[in-house]
Amino acid sequence: MGKTLTMKLLESHLLEGKLLVGEDVKVKVDQTLTQDSTGTMVYLQLLALNIAKIKTECSVAYIDHNMLQAGFENADDHEFIRSVANRYGIIYSKAGNGICHQLHLERFSKPGKVLIGSDSHTPTCGAVCMLAIGAGGLDVAVGMSHGFYTIKVPKVMNIQLTGSLKPWVSAKDVILYILKLLTVKGGVGYILEYSGEGLNYLSVTDRATIANMGAEVGATTSIFPSDEVTLDYFKGQGRPEDYAPLTADFEANEDRRYFYDEVLKINLDEIEPLTAMPHSPDQVRDVKDITGLKIDQVAIGSCTNSSYKDLMRVAQILKGKKVAEHVSLVISPGSSNILKMLADNGALGDLIASGARILEASCGPCIGMGQAPKSGGVSLRTFNRNFRGRCGTDSASVYLVSPETAAISAIYGVLTSPEALANDQSVLDVVLPSHFEIQNGYFIHPNGIGEIITGPNIKPFPLNAPLMDVIIGEVILKTGDHITTDDIVPSSAKLLPLRSNVPELSKHCFEGIDVEFYNRAIEKKGGFIVGGDNYGQGSSREHAALVPLYLGVKAVIAKSFARIHKANLINSGILPLVFANIEAYQSIELGDVLTVEQLDHISDDEFLNGIRVQNLTKETTIIVKLDGSIQDVALIKIGGQINHLKQLAREV
Amino acid sequence: MGKTLTMKLLESHLLEGKLLVGEDVKVKVDQTLTQDSTGTMVYLQLLALNIAKIKTECSVAYIDHNMLQAGFENADDHEFIRSVANRYGIIYSKAGNGICHQLHLERFSKPGKVLIGSDSHTPTCGAVCMLAIGAGGLDVAVGMSHGFYTIKVPKVMNIQLTGSLKPWVSAKDVILYILKLLTVKGGVGYILEYSGEGLNYLSVTDRATIANMGAEVGATTSIFPSDEVTLDYFKGQGRPEDYAPLTADFEANEDRRYFYDEVLKINLDEIEPLTAMPHSPDQVRDVKDITGLKIDQVAIGSCTNSSYKDLMRVAQILKGKKVAEHVSLVISPGSSNILKMLADNGALGDLIASGARILEASCGPCIGMGQAPKSGGVSLRTFNRNFRGRCGTDSASVYLVSPETAAISAIYGVLTSPEALANDQSVLDVVLPSHFEIQNGYFIHPNGIGEIITGPNIKPFPLNAPLMDVIIGEVILKTGDHITTDDIVPSSAKLLPLRSNVPELSKHCFEGIDVEFYNRAIEKKGGFIVGGDNYGQGSSREHAALVPLYLGVKAVIAKSFARIHKANLINSGILPLVFANIEAYQSIELGDVLTVEQLDHISDDEFLNGIRVQNLTKETTIIVKLDGSIQDVALIKIGGQINHLKQLAREV
Repeated sequence: MGKTLTMKLLESHLLEGKLLVGEDVKVKVDQTLTQDSTGTMVYLQLLALNIAKIKTECSVAYIDHNMLQAGFENADDHEFIRSVANRYGIIYSKAGNGICHQLHLERFSKPGKVLIGSDSHTPTCGAVCMLAIGAGGLDVAVGMSHGFYTIKVPKVMNIQLTGSLKPWVSAKDVILYILKLLTVKGGVGYILEYSGEGLNYLSVTDRATIANMGAEVGATTSIFPSDEVTLDYFKGQGRPEDYAPLTADFEANEDRRYFYDEVLKINLDEIEPLTAMPHSPDQVRDVKDITGLKIDQVAIGSCTNSSYKDLMRVAQILKGKKVAEHVSLVISPGSSNILKMLADNGALGDLIASGARILEASCGPCIGMGQAPKSGGVSLRTFNRNFRGRCGTDSASVYLVSPETAAISAIYGVLTSPEALANDQSVLDVVLPSHFEIQNGYFIHPNGIGEIITGPNIKPFPLNAPLMDVIIGEVILKTGDHITTDDIVPSSAKLLPLRSNVPELSKHCFEGIDVEFYNRAIEKKGGFIVGGDNYGQGSSREHAALVPLYLGVKAVIAKSFARIHKANLINSGILPLVFANIEAYQSIELGDVLTVEQLDHISDDEFLNGIRVQNLTKETTIIVKLDGSIQDVALIKIGGQINHLKQLAREV
Repeated sequence: MGKTLTMKLLESHLLEGKLLVGEDVKVKVDQTLTQDSTGTMVYLQLLALNIAKIKTECSVAYIDHNMLQAGFENADDHEFIRSVANRYGIIYSKAGNGICHQLHLERFSKPGKVLIGSDSHTPTCGAVCMLAIGAGGLDVAVGMSHGFYTIKVPKVMNIQLTGSLKPWVSAKDVILYILKLLTVKGGVGYILEYSGEGLNYLSVTDRATIANMGAEVGATTSIFPSDEVTLDYFKGQGRPEDYAPLTADFEANEDRRYFYDEVLKINLDEIEPLTAMPHSPDQVRDVKDITGLKIDQVAIGSCTNSSYKDLMRVAQILKGKKVAEHVSLVISPGSSNILKMLADNGALGDLIASGARILEASCGPCIGMGQAPKSGGVSLRTFNRNFRGRCGTDSASVYLVSPETAAISAIYGVLTSPEALANDQSVLDVVLPSHFEIQNGYFIHPNGIGEIITGPNIKPFPLNAPLMDVIIGEVILKTGDHITTDDIVPSSAKLLPLRSNVPELSKHCFEGIDVEFYNRAIEKKGGFIVGGDNYGQGSSREHAALVPLYLGVKAVIAKSFARIHKANLINSGILPLVFANIEAYQSIELGDVLTVEQLDHISDDEFLNGIRVQNLTKETTIIVKLDGSIQDVALIKIGGQINHLKQLAREV
């Protein structure tokens, strides 16, 4: 029987477990990447794992998030990461080099390899047939230290692309179209595998745009085959030797349902220029339906749309034109390589002449690090997320669009379809150069020596103790459904510099939900959190587990958990418990004292099927289950992944 | 008798008063400039002056300070300024266009004109023989609304430049040399007028570097003659018609003391590469004395050193080299014109290839808006000030250097004299282009219509009432000597966005001196501040008067006042009082209740020579004087400049 790309990649990296959907398997990790806002924690944990040198083929620490440096914190974090990278064998990418996903694709991606990264858009490298997965920070640290990653085998959805894109429609419109079809939940539990003759019309960076925003569909990752287009890309990047062809096995018949769990057929010809309306990436409409909407800001860049081709098309559209007087157009190139190419070929000059603001090659406004729109402002962005407030301005409305739509709209000052450019063939004529720039000024290759530098912003992370026989505490928070990691640990230009400082960060825990939470948690010395459905959705940030751990949270009892957050809780030794009977949610109130006893004597099976929680206040008992596997029970018992790995090391 | 340039400029603009040193005179204002951190307040005050259109020949509102936009505040401020500019006839320079002083020099400077600006480095345009003076925001608003500026006629110091600069010595070293000679106080009360054959070796942007940092010597401004070098500059900027020759009258003898108040002779040949050590621009030493100092950061740019020539030399030094691994090199071009020229001629590509971080054309790190060094870090900067904490990191050490010293040091990772480049003639061969780029994409020319847009960050500024017959209150703060405007209203990346929001800003008033000040001021409903010598030194920010006014401060009694701050107090209707007998300073304590009575019946003469202040707590009486002129007494009586001008308007 033919195999999917997913299966080929998992098989070739399988260390432990059975490749059956829903089973936990351990796979070998070839590469890791970190960015700086999650990276400090990853490297603090790596230090705690007490190794001499990393085990991966290639690990890279990128600085791309916290680059504003309004205080000493960011620079302290960068220096800490640089020192750890140098000591343990990790390549360090200095601030200014560009965005991790764009750079990793350019310089380190390899078809057929497994990459995990402490950023939810790590799937970008799926564009060149990598199994590239976003993970919690500790999982990335363990990937480096122990060379493995544990993953629940996902289902595979085949997305068959037929036809070709209309002239003014681009890869961003393709993934917006998919978001419209699947919604932000449609990909949960799936890997999206692309195929079909439509691929011939998508360059590697187009595919990267699509793979990148697979994260928004909720998919574990996205994978494109490695083909002639891929080879051209590796040739352009000066490393054809890193190319390897890799495709799914399939018969030449249309219906490949026999080995995919699901098939979605998309005719590229049917796609129009699209936009995702505030405040969700799946609120997709045709640009032409809301043409004329007055805009205040246009932001082009991010790991989604900052490639050479994206920015060359933008430059070609803006050439000889002027940005509308009331519009602020900001452009952040994806990498120093792209910035240099644009400078050298005159495109940057065209952008400047139009009145654009040229920002550093970094994530920048996409993660709220600067360029917050004015109050109530309308911002068109080529980014991947438009959640309320993410841009830094709660009252702003963010629309996600393609670079072409962004550029033409910047000129007119109102949302405009790029089809208005119908006669401007020069934009469509932008071709990829046969050779890309390769900057080496920003990469530091490790030499294995030197001290670890921990400035005052670097604080130890909390480490759990083995599970006690009895846990007792108050319910210090009861939430509704869909609590996000942003709710748990808010993210903003002000708070991102505190990601290596859990004690400071904890003061902001749940502050948008309940301003008294921090004081209560301190006063009560922690306790239980009761949540609704989909608790912990959103980003991969493990701070959403580490901060509650620091505040003494022992367990979260919820209706259901989001995948990565649940893994982060288990890694931290916090019990993720689900109600056996969902009605029990109603019976618990804020301030109730809960206790779980005889944990020493409960079997693994009981952990997974029935733990008795006594509500001492209400004098009731409810049944909950640990939402995990037998391996997870072991992690919980010993107080989390780091304790587990340390014990293994002692046993060896 | 021959006339100085200063006298020629003052004479040609005199509206009122006698041109005698120390006398207050009113001069006609031809041009104004504002930047955004002081500009919002300027334009709020302009609105209060209730005019139809500005009276100046050319007024420009630049956005160059608050460009990080971590929240909605900055963008709200920009939009407000844009709307006022458009309505009242002011040219608006969008964010991304560059730094006010660099841009004003490029596009609007004119020999022989008077420019006032709400930024202490406004003297930069003295490079092309303008009388260019930094002033409080209200003075700039009045310059626009009423077309005049009141100035105490300063003394004139002639700085005669002989000889020529050694190959690796540049304009920055010249002004550092002057700072070493004169210290940060040596220019107080003076205008510095440059002459001598040494001028032939200084381009207009070299002269601008020197004029710019005349502010650090404490000078009112600096003036260079308008000569052939000036003409070349105007030709290069595509506006030779704006050029006019203008020089001081003098005999061809060496000693021109007969019409200058002071003469300082400097032989350029004697100047070596210099650096200003932490934490003052006048702590100047030879670079070679501390060569080898390990550095963490190099920052190139600011209104002092971000010209085409500066950055071309930097690019030439870095070409083919790599920034040291442990160094972060950040470069902020002075204007979009310069950035485009560097992009188009390949220099920007060279900078990127070296590993430099390319920031927006803006003030950026010079005003602490980003790029704070790591804790305890050493930062070399081509900027104008290195006060402790200004960079955003209290524990950092900032050294001021030339662009050449900065660039070579970035490569070696330690402080290095550019003389190490002895064989690299290509750097010295950098020549100015005959034609400079002229971007128009960022300038918005006003059309006189449209609403004023005041987002939620724009709050009304406090306006005083006419002086009461009796003022009574507690001493709510007693300080030592040398209180700076930073002490009164702290400046940081966090607080700069609040410059248009006095109520929020007031919560930080004096917070570094006394954390209880704000609460006490609110509780006591204002009162008196008692200060030492040189109270209010530092920047021109009038927030240091407006915030105390908002908090109910009626009078400041000090040993002496800094010039601009005193003017700001008077403009706000707060009494700047000095002790008749300095010993009386000792007799007053925090919490003492003071009262001044019968203010309605005190003559102007008594205001200036003896006001009785009763200390009800100590049961003593002390004598103080208003530190000002008869005109100032009138302003105080009516509650400040705005009330005064409104009254005049009613009388007309």
